[in-house]
Amino acid sequence: MEDFFDVIKVKDFISIIRQMPLLGTEEVSLENSGGRRLARDYFSHEDLPATNRSSMDGYAVISGDTFGAGDSNPAYLQVAYSISIEDNPQAGIEQGSCAGIVTGATLPPGADSVVMIEHVHDMGQGTIEVRKPVAPGENVMLRGEDVAKGDLVMHTGQVIDPRRTGILAALGWNRVQVFKRPAVALISTGDELVDISQRPGPGYIRDVNTHALGEMLRVQGYDPYLPGIVSDDEQALKEVFSKTLEHSDVVLVSGGSSVGNRDYTLKALSEIKGLEIQAHGLAISPGKPTIFARRGRQCVWGLPGQVTSAQVVMLILVLPFLGHLQGEKDPFTLREEFLIRARLSRNLASRYGREDYVRVRLEKSGEQIMAIPVTGKSGLLRTMLQAHGLVRIPENSEGLSKDHQVLVRLF
Amino acid sequence: MEDFFDVIKVKDFISIIRQMPLLGTEEVSLENSGGRRLARDYFSHEDLPATNRSSMDGYAVISGDTFGAGDSNPAYLQVAYSISIEDNPQAGIEQGSCAGIVTGATLPPGADSVVMIEHVHDMGQGTIEVRKPVAPGENVMLRGEDVAKGDLVMHTGQVIDPRRTGILAALGWNRVQVFKRPAVALISTGDELVDISQRPGPGYIRDVNTHALGEMLRVQGYDPYLPGIVSDDEQALKEVFSKTLEHSDVVLVSGGSSVGNRDYTLKALSEIKGLEIQAHGLAISPGKPTIFARRGRQCVWGLPGQVTSAQVVMLILVLPFLGHLQGEKDPFTLREEFLIRARLSRNLASRYGREDYVRVRLEKSGEQIMAIPVTGKSGLLRTMLQAHGLVRIPENSEGLSKDHQVLVRLF
Repeated sequence: MEDFFDVIKVKDFISIIRQMPLLGTEEVSLENSGGRRLARDYFSHEDLPATNRSSMDGYAVISGDTFGAGDSNPAYLQVAYSISIEDNPQAGIEQGSCAGIVTGATLPPGADSVVMIEHVHDMGQGTIEVRKPVAPGENVMLRGEDVAKGDLVMHTGQVIDPRRTGILAALGWNRVQVFKRPAVALISTGDELVDISQRPGPGYIRDVNTHALGEMLRVQGYDPYLPGIVSDDEQALKEVFSKTLEHSDVVLVSGGSSVGNRDYTLKALSEIKGLEIQAHGLAISPGKPTIFARRGRQCVWGLPGQVTSAQVVMLILVLPFLGHLQGEKDPFTLREEFLIRARLSRNLASRYGREDYVRVRLEKSGEQIMAIPVTGKSGLLRTMLQAHGLVRIPENSEGLSKDHQVLVRLF
Repeated sequence: MEDFFDVIKVKDFISIIRQMPLLGTEEVSLENSGGRRLARDYFSHEDLPATNRSSMDGYAVISGDTFGAGDSNPAYLQVAYSISIEDNPQAGIEQGSCAGIVTGATLPPGADSVVMIEHVHDMGQGTIEVRKPVAPGENVMLRGEDVAKGDLVMHTGQVIDPRRTGILAALGWNRVQVFKRPAVALISTGDELVDISQRPGPGYIRDVNTHALGEMLRVQGYDPYLPGIVSDDEQALKEVFSKTLEHSDVVLVSGGSSVGNRDYTLKALSEIKGLEIQAHGLAISPGKPTIFARRGRQCVWGLPGQVTSAQVVMLILVLPFLGHLQGEKDPFTLREEFLIRARLSRNLASRYGREDYVRVRLEKSGEQIMAIPVTGKSGLLRTMLQAHGLVRIPENSEGLSKDHQVLVRLF
């Protein structure tokens, strides 16, 4: 069976797919930008905060006036005036004086800190008593302390998550420049497939992939076009490929990508004008029967028909690839800091020269987190429910031993 | 300041909010069910697979016929007939015979395994040569091996993620019973706030919370109603609360929840008919000025105005609470298996009796993952960009020491 594929290493495959050019860009409102990738660097055009701001209700003071203040030795200050939110105080305060101030308001010239209202006793006749010293800068946000004018705040390719939404809002970017989302089509092929609303006769099964892989795309914010089930028929496949390529950046087809009797995906793809098969067969398990074909800025992925295998290829390669198309810098590399470290509960064999992805369940055992490989034939749907994530066995390994520390990528 | 709040422990607060009744249920199509919570247990009404199925193209055999087969001692079998996907073979195979079979097709009576086509040599005249033995069950999925009729597949309150979508599709549930999503309104209050499209004058700042907290809700699949900015005015607040309560299950209001000069949220809430203030002040940092008020099946949350504090309360309490309303079983408890274990880079002080959440950055250092507290005043937006997650310092602790192992909850 090996010989029918021209198996390539995952690293080489990634080099091929990374050559695909990035998508175009567009401007969207901040409310609609969640999950999108920024299409340019964002430098701040202002200081945040714009002035020295009080972060408490209280009195703006010269901190030196409060040094040594305590219950037995309070400091007494004259309240020169009061500052509200909209004021831009020009009159400075002098030694021995202070100004009432509300949260967010601008400090007057001379003041370097704020005494919280709770720590002050109003003596009447414009005098306050302070029984606790404040340090310079206390209860104050200095102009530009958060973001200074000219700072690089975010850069091209970064994903807009709620934290970044917050910064964009704070700096007034109510419209943002993002990469277009790829138009993705998702096709299931197989004579044995029926729509999920039908009760399959013997030999037939319901079309799981349209739903399971479709949901993986939707979770990431894509809106896949779903032309439905295509039979194992070269002509039918060719037609659906041609049709979906008319309005898709990326066509995903699950099933028929292997080398069996009824695997027509490769043949059909090779007959589409201008489409070049760049890979057929990947040194990965599961996921070996993966195809990548390109036509200019468009591409078609052949994915395994077995849903558990297709999901691994989606997670490890397709979803990062969609990030690449939107300018993400290094979507194929996971940072070790964000993976779960666990101890392997038993030996795991692997074939040298192939990257293996093993489904594991995580369980706490004493102070250890154990990664327990989920057994059962590949293709069993319940292995997906039982597992929490994937362990990668690298290409240059013949397996991992029990108690080995592994890094688990959560689903 | 302490005295103005009636601070309660996080545990007690959770007991209060868990008393809120669950939302109603509805039926949605599988395509639209992603992220929703199941409103009933799902028991399988069929076996999956429905028959003994071949998982390869090849020949269905009696495994015993291949025992001992090898290059020097091949087994020879007669091909009785061939089985395609749609066949439901009734004729059994006998010793010394086999049946051609395609992936997914039903095994004939008598056969217990499948020899892959790649391991067979066709001798012509209906005879095949097998040079490798197969074990009973090899390349076969037995009837009900994945899911047996009557199995509990998923239960009430579970979130529909892509893996669960796959199982639901495989078992033909093209419509699923889920809890309704809560109708959530999100209000920002503060005299100092301006819409993000405006350039704020001195003392004013842009309304970050509507966007940052709104995006946290959208990421989780909610569609918040955003009535906009309300000034620090008791009457205006009362009106917007009354209005939004007309069509919301949950009203979130950020700002004005503390005890300062301009904090009218509590007062306004206490004047809404039927609304009972159940908590004001939480032993959590940041997030102390949190309010919870209830009117029957509806509730209002007062959140801190400072966005970094509001985000912590959203993550730790509000989002899990929204899960609770949709039947999630234990949304407030994180499983340790899914948190990142890291070593603390420096001492962290905390106040006994208060749960502290500290923003940390994760960094690999040799073989260790370090959790580095992000310094800077709370309220600085950039601390959110710099941090990867939160470390919790429990209530009964006065802090954590350098090199202590901590569990990090990623943002």
